[in-house]
Amino acid sequence: MNPKQQVEQLAKEINSYIPGMSIDCVLLGYKEGRMHVLVLKFKNADHWALPGGFIKKDEDMELAAQRVLFSRTGVTIPFLKQLRAFGTVNRRQINKFYSPIDYLPFPQAIKDFFNERFISMAYLALVNPETFVPVPDDFSEVCEWHPIGEVPYPLIYDHADMIDYAQQYIRQQIKYQPMGFSLLPERFTMNDLRGLYEAVLGHELDRANFQKKILKLEILNRHEKQMSGGAHKAPYLYSFNVEQYNKTLEKGLGFIS
Amino acid sequence: MNPKQQVEQLAKEINSYIPGMSIDCVLLGYKEGRMHVLVLKFKNADHWALPGGFIKKDEDMELAAQRVLFSRTGVTIPFLKQLRAFGTVNRRQINKFYSPIDYLPFPQAIKDFFNERFISMAYLALVNPETFVPVPDDFSEVCEWHPIGEVPYPLIYDHADMIDYAQQYIRQQIKYQPMGFSLLPERFTMNDLRGLYEAVLGHELDRANFQKKILKLEILNRHEKQMSGGAHKAPYLYSFNVEQYNKTLEKGLGFIS
Repeated sequence: MNPKQQVEQLAKEINSYIPGMSIDCVLLGYKEGRMHVLVLKFKNADHWALPGGFIKKDEDMELAAQRVLFSRTGVTIPFLKQLRAFGTVNRRQINKFYSPIDYLPFPQAIKDFFNERFISMAYLALVNPETFVPVPDDFSEVCEWHPIGEVPYPLIYDHADMIDYAQQYIRQQIKYQPMGFSLLPERFTMNDLRGLYEAVLGHELDRANFQKKILKLEILNRHEKQMSGGAHKAPYLYSFNVEQYNKTLEKGLGFIS
Repeated sequence: MNPKQQVEQLAKEINSYIPGMSIDCVLLGYKEGRMHVLVLKFKNADHWALPGGFIKKDEDMELAAQRVLFSRTGVTIPFLKQLRAFGTVNRRQINKFYSPIDYLPFPQAIKDFFNERFISMAYLALVNPETFVPVPDDFSEVCEWHPIGEVPYPLIYDHADMIDYAQQYIRQQIKYQPMGFSLLPERFTMNDLRGLYEAVLGHELDRANFQKKILKLEILNRHEKQMSGGAHKAPYLYSFNVEQYNKTLEKGLGFIS
């Protein structure tokens, strides 16, 4: 679509959305030993943002989150989870994004819609970046992974806070739930798994101690080494035992249950 | 206020609220060996509801939750936590509440406001019911504690789902975090604490095993018995060691950290 068509399309759509309520998706992925976040760069602007959008008046909120993510990035994630609503009055005054809407002759209905105060629900998903190719939508120049903390600034509004909050959240979660099933490839080494834990926790873990503790959970399958070439020197490959993994998710790593 | 004054007051206030977004508070308390929930009964109607309300256009969402709870119940809780937003399109078609607004000549602005689709953020707090006296607001006949599952029906809309969700949530939390500080009186017996755990988990726990596990956490102070009368037969009283309790909250009961 060219810009004129986009405006016409938006003007048509705007009345179908609930005013004052938005959705932003925090997709966290593990690659190259670090946690990354998926962000978009607006066309003709230096601003970056989480993939976000609005809820249709006749649409369940959870389905809206799926649609928004897909429409902005081409990505379908069935397990988006509500992280937290961000609802301070001034959240859109921080790193304010001056879009074309602010200075071009857009229809008043569009301007009014965007000028409302918005409360935004942040959704979270943990994914393996290798498993899909993000595609930027018509409003965006690029859609790509950046290491958390090295996202090209400025992120609009309170999107940096959303990413921070998501990081704190999974840092807490990993202490009492198994994690990694959706983040790692199907088969991985013990080093890969420890690397993920270290990336989430933000500090190093003792190699032997980690292996002992994680094996004790009995959530891993160990695969036999392929006995060809120098493979006997290769490390063991593991995969998650999905049944045990889910059982442990349900009962937690805590001891009172 | 008489009903006429209430309507005038509401008409004045209604424009100061964000349309389409509400707040409902799930206050869970432990008493008489069971988890209870705080609910209101509307005047001149059989409907019961969680204490709920709206967000002012110039008010942070978290502060709105405090104000709503206070204005509906007279209760101030500093640690309300976002539980989940309930956002299906049809959530207010379930157990629909026909209020006077539906059949009396209320101002159109009020009718329009209430006819919008609402997404509601459910907030959660765990409290000790002995520590405050709930006071119903002008719209309500009573404001009282009922055991979960024995709340006088029908609860309006999806409020029963909110309570269910809160119960599932704390049932999961108690498996990997210490719980009880805000629910129990300052001093309690080991039986009291186990009773709370049993009420939350929904099943009995082995007496000796529970005591061993909970003491191992080192989150309790044991108090010396008062040596007067038959007191030597009385059980030990405990209180939470707040510093250790908070440390454990932070690191979780899981073993990878």
